[in-house]
Amino acid sequence: MTTTMTIGDFLLRRLREVGIQHLFGVAGDFNLEFLLQMEDGKGFTWAGNCNELNASYAADGYARIHGIAGLVVTNGVGAWSAINGIAGAYSEHVPVICVCGSPPLRSIDRNLLMHHTPATTDNDGVMRGYAQVTAAQARLTPQNAVMEIDRLIATAWRRKLPVYMELPSDIAYLEVEVPAEPLRLAMPAGDPERLSTCAATIVTAFANAESPAILVDLAADRFDVAAELMELAGKRGIPIAAINTAKGVIDETHPCYLGLYAGAGSEPGVREVVEGSDCLLTIGLRRVDTTCGAFTDALPALRIDARGDAVDIGPDNFQAVYLKELLRKVADDLPARKSAPARTPSAAEAAAEATPPGPLTQAVYWSMIQNFVREGDVIIAEGGTSEVGGFGLRLPSGCTFITQSVWGSIGYSVGSVLGTLLAAPHRRHLLFVGDGSFQLTAQELSTMLRHDLKPIIFLINNGGYTIERAICGKNGTFNDIANWAYAELPKVLHPGTTARTFVVKTAAELEAAMAAPHDNMIFIEAVMDKYDALQTALDMGHGMAEIDYGPRGPQHRPGVQI
Amino acid sequence: MTTTMTIGDFLLRRLREVGIQHLFGVAGDFNLEFLLQMEDGKGFTWAGNCNELNASYAADGYARIHGIAGLVVTNGVGAWSAINGIAGAYSEHVPVICVCGSPPLRSIDRNLLMHHTPATTDNDGVMRGYAQVTAAQARLTPQNAVMEIDRLIATAWRRKLPVYMELPSDIAYLEVEVPAEPLRLAMPAGDPERLSTCAATIVTAFANAESPAILVDLAADRFDVAAELMELAGKRGIPIAAINTAKGVIDETHPCYLGLYAGAGSEPGVREVVEGSDCLLTIGLRRVDTTCGAFTDALPALRIDARGDAVDIGPDNFQAVYLKELLRKVADDLPARKSAPARTPSAAEAAAEATPPGPLTQAVYWSMIQNFVREGDVIIAEGGTSEVGGFGLRLPSGCTFITQSVWGSIGYSVGSVLGTLLAAPHRRHLLFVGDGSFQLTAQELSTMLRHDLKPIIFLINNGGYTIERAICGKNGTFNDIANWAYAELPKVLHPGTTARTFVVKTAAELEAAMAAPHDNMIFIEAVMDKYDALQTALDMGHGMAEIDYGPRGPQHRPGVQI
Repeated sequence: MTTTMTIGDFLLRRLREVGIQHLFGVAGDFNLEFLLQMEDGKGFTWAGNCNELNASYAADGYARIHGIAGLVVTNGVGAWSAINGIAGAYSEHVPVICVCGSPPLRSIDRNLLMHHTPATTDNDGVMRGYAQVTAAQARLTPQNAVMEIDRLIATAWRRKLPVYMELPSDIAYLEVEVPAEPLRLAMPAGDPERLSTCAATIVTAFANAESPAILVDLAADRFDVAAELMELAGKRGIPIAAINTAKGVIDETHPCYLGLYAGAGSEPGVREVVEGSDCLLTIGLRRVDTTCGAFTDALPALRIDARGDAVDIGPDNFQAVYLKELLRKVADDLPARKSAPARTPSAAEAAAEATPPGPLTQAVYWSMIQNFVREGDVIIAEGGTSEVGGFGLRLPSGCTFITQSVWGSIGYSVGSVLGTLLAAPHRRHLLFVGDGSFQLTAQELSTMLRHDLKPIIFLINNGGYTIERAICGKNGTFNDIANWAYAELPKVLHPGTTARTFVVKTAAELEAAMAAPHDNMIFIEAVMDKYDALQTALDMGHGMAEIDYGPRGPQHRPGVQI
Repeated sequence: MTTTMTIGDFLLRRLREVGIQHLFGVAGDFNLEFLLQMEDGKGFTWAGNCNELNASYAADGYARIHGIAGLVVTNGVGAWSAINGIAGAYSEHVPVICVCGSPPLRSIDRNLLMHHTPATTDNDGVMRGYAQVTAAQARLTPQNAVMEIDRLIATAWRRKLPVYMELPSDIAYLEVEVPAEPLRLAMPAGDPERLSTCAATIVTAFANAESPAILVDLAADRFDVAAELMELAGKRGIPIAAINTAKGVIDETHPCYLGLYAGAGSEPGVREVVEGSDCLLTIGLRRVDTTCGAFTDALPALRIDARGDAVDIGPDNFQAVYLKELLRKVADDLPARKSAPARTPSAAEAAAEATPPGPLTQAVYWSMIQNFVREGDVIIAEGGTSEVGGFGLRLPSGCTFITQSVWGSIGYSVGSVLGTLLAAPHRRHLLFVGDGSFQLTAQELSTMLRHDLKPIIFLINNGGYTIERAICGKNGTFNDIANWAYAELPKVLHPGTTARTFVVKTAAELEAAMAAPHDNMIFIEAVMDKYDALQTALDMGHGMAEIDYGPRGPQHRPGVQI
């Protein structure tokens, strides 16, 4: 059955049908007509971001919580501005639908040179660029709009990757025949034999193993299989470790949760179990320098490597096997082991009893943060010392931990938390960010305040890019930054704001700030020494220098400070 | 003759040899070792931008004044963040050298997955993206570094286009043989016969013409031919008009200067002369919707179309003819015409005698700006009402007028003025920007203050994207923005600043602000009505709606406000 509607309205309808309620982006002349359709249709809240990069980060954060997100930009100036956020979504497998309002088809047909383009007759440069960082791309036309919109949205969902569609500005109001059926996002069913053979192989392997274990990467979050994993692990007391990309995906209070695995950088007790396992199931594993302890991981050769749409078990390969369906079956079929030994989760760091005196240090800071996090929190930790500190937290139940440990774009977190706040308004959102990172995307505070959102923002003011001091250039002026009055920003970006802002220099001051009632945005600027960092952060920096610069790198010069 | 030095030091040496004294960008682990070489070599001032997009805009502004610029970013996260500025440089022909610190060659050789990448084994995605917006690209290796560095820099200079080079992080400190000779930027000499035939053809055509004229596009600035053009025009009283991309390139006080040509949007008296010419010489002409009056231009069919490296004269085409050399010869060979009629330049708008009462309007604002601009000013006008107002100014002698009327990326101006300030510290720099645009890149104020730079910033606070209200969505919430306390930003981004900040709502208040001593940054926030705009801006917006949305666009719906 079909009906008729405008192309723009159909696109909006599909975005609504897949559950998107907010759209991120910036208005520009090639998308204004579409934004007017959005406003007339009353189906969305428009985020109204300050710029497209911040918008793309926000869309990523929204999709990580909500499952999928939409971003609306203008071709050329907007699309190129947003591409770094889309590239991060591509790297970290986040489904973002980028709708790019584009020059009118008339101009392409007639070879007319338009603003926001290179003013040559090549109209496809942006799409070729986006082809590097998306799973699928299309220029919508009246002929293909219905097919391509549905194809791109389904691709984003199934592959957990961003997609890019150009909407020429002279077709949004043209009418086409559209299906009456709503679009439902679903993984296809797997091939029955492949699924059942694969599941049986895994079940047998686990049942026969003496020391089975599970190692989860970010696919465990993206494909929403944490529950299945915890269930199957719980049946036989199988320990589960996480790559840092997937911290918090397995409930850290679960009896089977082991800790973070990262080769030589693993949490205590984790490495031996994972590397000594005689039957290791990995979920979406990728060995990236920042996620496998700079390649110091040494996983057993005999493994079950499952990803979103295929599985490798030693020499055998299974196509058309989808992760959630597979793990559901394994969880169902795995025989329980009587009196499965419960694993005692490592105790959280004992909370310090007294508030230490003197200036605030990173060590004290993170121990206080440990006491502050609560069940259900959404925690976003920016690359750098915030991420390192965040990895060290033992998370209560039901937390979502967001970082970009693969892509690592500083400034991401400030945009991302806008997205998570809009996606999950009833949860508490904690942002941990350093001053250097904050400066890239600071203006998005304005959008948070404009939407009356209430993040709790912990900013470390220590005069520069701390993790980079540990990597190279401890005293390099290129690692210094301007000193802002960070805590004054909310009232400049939202005059009359009732945001609660604090500048803290001691543990006592931090404690008082943390006790503030959470009736508004809370912004805590913590001033610390520029060289102070957790030992893990320093070690990580020094290790990265080796990987990046090698034996002739500047870290080996006589007399250099690291 | 050769000598030996590290690859990083050689690259720095080449950048210094071509006159670059400042480098823009953001530190990231793949470029830290190179930044350390930069700091150790003491040959550059590091701008230390807040983010890579702002840095790429600043590099563009620097290159427009200085001739060429250098930008240093980190692969993936930095490069994708910067690409919009490079795309603008590509669109508007500005030579920027993008140096992208990249993953170590070791990781590429060994197929190791690195952070800041998509974590697949494809390492070339960013370069393929940059190939869409640069004239040349290369991944430097020890084997090719010398050749590629020189090729890329020469290409940027000769073609007036940006270039992209990847510097893997494990080779910057390796030693290679390098030429002892410095690199000199120069256009090659043209083919002697092609040059002389072409010049003679032009000279003959001008000598025989009854109503010759010249029309200059931005190539006249990029290839530095304003002097030659004014000289040859002056010999015979040939009128020169400018496309809006080239406003100010021909001295507006020159007796031959006519005004801006833009088809139906031309300044008074210009269209008839240009379109009625029987011998029109165009310099780098491109017909873009925003530069040719939405394609209402109607140029004579018989033309001399000269660009940087070739000329078309009717059916004849001349390759290997370079613009400056050609125009030098034409200026030399063109016979002077006795008693060449002097053309009286249009008088500037008579300055209003009395300060009008009541709230400030755009009309009054721009007439006051007209009285404020001085000889030698660098004027940057952001896309939107600032650009429209700027185009209406009659410029004193020696001004540089910068806008992005082809690429049109809002926020560009705030980054760009940082570049122009560093390139030309002894000139006065005026920035005209709207509130919506300012919000995209506002943090770069911090970098200006950190370098003790003293722009005079005129910001229009009228609650939104004004030009977009005129295009589509007069009352669309997507054209509204958050209201910031803009004039409070300098002291938050540079506590203790002595910048002079003003909020003005009347002509009298603006007058007082403009009279402030120029011993610091001056920041003037002018509050105006959200619907107030010059008629030219409204007309431009309405015209753009027709081009963009066509006959079915929302501007034609009954009852819609435009």
